[in-house]
Amino acid sequence: MKVEVLKNVFEKNENAAGENRRRLSARGVTCINLLGGAGCGKTSILEAVLPALTKSLRVAVLEGDLATTRDAARIAELGVPVVQLLTEGGCHLNATLIEHGLDRLPLDEIDLVIIENVGNPICPANFDLGEHLRISVLSVTEGDDKPSKYPLLFKGVAAVLLTKCDLLPHTDFDIEQARQDIRRVNPHAQIFETDVKNGAGIEQLAQWILTQCQQPAPPSLCSKE
Amino acid sequence: MKVEVLKNVFEKNENAAGENRRRLSARGVTCINLLGGAGCGKTSILEAVLPALTKSLRVAVLEGDLATTRDAARIAELGVPVVQLLTEGGCHLNATLIEHGLDRLPLDEIDLVIIENVGNPICPANFDLGEHLRISVLSVTEGDDKPSKYPLLFKGVAAVLLTKCDLLPHTDFDIEQARQDIRRVNPHAQIFETDVKNGAGIEQLAQWILTQCQQPAPPSLCSKE
Repeated sequence: MKVEVLKNVFEKNENAAGENRRRLSARGVTCINLLGGAGCGKTSILEAVLPALTKSLRVAVLEGDLATTRDAARIAELGVPVVQLLTEGGCHLNATLIEHGLDRLPLDEIDLVIIENVGNPICPANFDLGEHLRISVLSVTEGDDKPSKYPLLFKGVAAVLLTKCDLLPHTDFDIEQARQDIRRVNPHAQIFETDVKNGAGIEQLAQWILTQCQQPAPPSLCSKE
Repeated sequence: MKVEVLKNVFEKNENAAGENRRRLSARGVTCINLLGGAGCGKTSILEAVLPALTKSLRVAVLEGDLATTRDAARIAELGVPVVQLLTEGGCHLNATLIEHGLDRLPLDEIDLVIIENVGNPICPANFDLGEHLRISVLSVTEGDDKPSKYPLLFKGVAAVLLTKCDLLPHTDFDIEQARQDIRRVNPHAQIFETDVKNGAGIEQLAQWILTQCQQPAPPSLCSKE
């Protein structure tokens, strides 16, 4: 009985996700789902990379949080259209929330929608939102054991961002070990070493995202259709 | 219908949690549930504080993880009895898993059981495990906005550990702001500033845990009985 209900919940989400993806693809809009634990630096990465992206793309952001509109306010400061999606305690975004967020964006005037998911390294990975690709974020202060301990966060993502690399000298994070462990879970992910304090890796990340958006049809890594 | 089933899931967990708490209290065993995001330093804090605790207490650890037995291996190195509880992708521990963990411990020879929950700042807070008190962990590299953005993690806990304080000079974490925000969510929580590299705050934390265990009856902050 319980299994049946859970199946329905996932099915309902997958249907809504498929609908979101079709809606975005039909308008030539690429959609990225940005995942990672709380405080891994997702919003800071967006603040760093958005100015480079908006030179050649029309970008909008959907900000997922349990509470507060702090992150949306940070993005709005950059002049980028943003909608704050509050889960009110919920541990992940779902495709229906994204649908409502997309309703509030002028999709015909947008090339790229970036969804910043709720800070949680586990649950969000289970929910397709209708994105075309996923990017995972792991800060070096979290420890190099995380790719092995949270494999789902790294599986099937197009890229992994190692953040806060300016703190590497102050941690025992082994970047080669982390790269190997990520590769074991996901041999194809692009790995970027970034640091928003000095801007390391940001230009490369921006270039890579631009390339993803220039694919003739947006890639469908997460698509099950 | 969906609400009904979710209600049953929580009810079932609460019943099992109450059972665990009665079982522990009857033997004079105190139980602490340690919560926090992935990589916030929960296992490192245990490694630092256990040698101080085991001087006067018989301690056991239940290690919660999605995958791998790495954390249990780190605790076993200290000669402390430990059981690894694997959720196999699940985002939180539940009271039934704890019951199975307790079955594997010689409870009559133990004074304190510490449960290290899955690294997730959201879901574990919703599940009573039968603990007597909760401790939340927040690393300063996660950012001082977290108490406002993840209030449930800080609500109703007996103590908050600010970890990795050796990295404070390299971050823009405002410790006074964090203290104020924690106080707003939870005026009674003890707040410890810790750093396992230099041992800061560890002796104070150990002393405070010892005091909790010496209460005539273990405190029941989370009890709904």
